[in-house]
Amino acid sequence: MKDHTKISNAVIKRLPRYRRYLNELRKKGIDKISSNEFSELTGYTASQIRQDLNNFGGFGQQGYGYSVEGLYNEISAILGLDKDYRMVVVGAGNLGLAVVNHTYYYKTGFVVKGIFEVKKDLIGKKINGIEIMDYENIVAFVEDNNIDIGIICTTKDAAQEAADKLCFAGVTGLWNFAPIDIETPSHVAVENVHITDSLHSLAYHMSKNADEKK
Amino acid sequence: MKDHTKISNAVIKRLPRYRRYLNELRKKGIDKISSNEFSELTGYTASQIRQDLNNFGGFGQQGYGYSVEGLYNEISAILGLDKDYRMVVVGAGNLGLAVVNHTYYYKTGFVVKGIFEVKKDLIGKKINGIEIMDYENIVAFVEDNNIDIGIICTTKDAAQEAADKLCFAGVTGLWNFAPIDIETPSHVAVENVHITDSLHSLAYHMSKNADEKK
Repeated sequence: MKDHTKISNAVIKRLPRYRRYLNELRKKGIDKISSNEFSELTGYTASQIRQDLNNFGGFGQQGYGYSVEGLYNEISAILGLDKDYRMVVVGAGNLGLAVVNHTYYYKTGFVVKGIFEVKKDLIGKKINGIEIMDYENIVAFVEDNNIDIGIICTTKDAAQEAADKLCFAGVTGLWNFAPIDIETPSHVAVENVHITDSLHSLAYHMSKNADEKK
Repeated sequence: MKDHTKISNAVIKRLPRYRRYLNELRKKGIDKISSNEFSELTGYTASQIRQDLNNFGGFGQQGYGYSVEGLYNEISAILGLDKDYRMVVVGAGNLGLAVVNHTYYYKTGFVVKGIFEVKKDLIGKKINGIEIMDYENIVAFVEDNNIDIGIICTTKDAAQEAADKLCFAGVTGLWNFAPIDIETPSHVAVENVHITDSLHSLAYHMSKNADEKK
C-alpha cells in the first residue's frame, strides 16, 4: 500500500461508497469488474475511479479490470475497517436509539458498549441488551473499557461538553449527530453528521427540476 | 441571480454549510464578513469560497467583504428554502421517530404532515401531534395533501417499493435513510443519507492518526 497521508478528504469520502458497491457485487458472486462497469454502477466517471484508486497504488490490471474481493479488502484496510471499534452513545432519546438500532445490524467492527443519559427515569433500561447508564459515570466507563469512539446524540447545547468529557476520557474518534460542529484536540478525529444539509441539497435539486419544467 | 443549472454537486453540497455559518453570524448581530474570516470559520480556503460564490454571481464587494444577511438570503433562495415543503415519513420505528423529532425543530419550510407504518399496533398513535397512519393509504394521502417530499425510514428491503409508491403519488423529492441507494424517475430528486459512510470516514481518520503516532 502506498503512503496515503496526503490523500484529499474528497477521495476518502468516496471510498465507503465504492466499498458498499463492491460488497453488493461480492454478495452476488461477481469476481471482477472493469472501471467502466464500476462507473455505471456507482455514478462516478471511470477516469475518476481510476484516479482515486491510483492514490492507493492501483489494484487494476490492464484488460482484466479490478478483482472485486481484492479491491473490497484493500479499501476496507485503508478505511481502518480491519480493526474493531468500541463505542459509547451519549443521549438515549429517539436519535440515540435510532443510532443504537442502526449499529446493531453491523456485521463487524463497530460495537456499542454503553449508552449514557442524564434523564434519571431512563437509566437502568436496556436497548438491544445494552444498558443505559448515568451520564455522570461516563469518564470512568470510557477509561475502564478502552472505548474508541463516542457517538454524540445530545441536544445542540450539551454536545460540546459531552465531546470534551469523551476526549478527556481517551476516545480517539467522535461521531457527532448534534446540530453543531464539535471541536476536538488534533489527535481526536471527528465526523459531524448534518442531516439538514442533505435536506437542503434535496430542496435545491427539487427547485432546479421545477425551474427546468417552466 | 446567474443561471445555475451547470453548478457541480460538490459546490451545492457546500452551500448548506455556508448558510449554517452565516445564520450563526446573523444571530450574533454580525453584518459583514471578509472571505478570509469566513474561511477561518468554515474551514474552506478563501479562494474556494470566492470561487463557489462566483458561480452565483459573486455578492462580495472589494474591500468590504460579504453582507451576512444578503449572502444568507441569496444562498437560501438558491437552495430553494424560500418555499414551503410538505413531507410524509414512511416508517415509525426509532429512525422515523428520530427524523420526525428532528424536523420538529425546523423554524421554517419543512413540515411533516403524516407518518405511515405497516405495523398495525402503531397506527393511530401520534408523534408531536402527527398521526401514524396505515401504509396502505399512503398514495391517496400524498395525492390529496400535495405532499412534496417522502422521507424513507423503512428497512432496506422495503425502501424501493416505498419510493415507487411515493413517486407514483406525486412527490418531487425523496429523502432516503434506508441503507440502499433509491432509484427514482428523473423528475424526482433524491438524497440518499448513508450514515455508515461517515462512520467509515471517521475510522479512516482514526487509523491515520494512529499510524502517525507510531
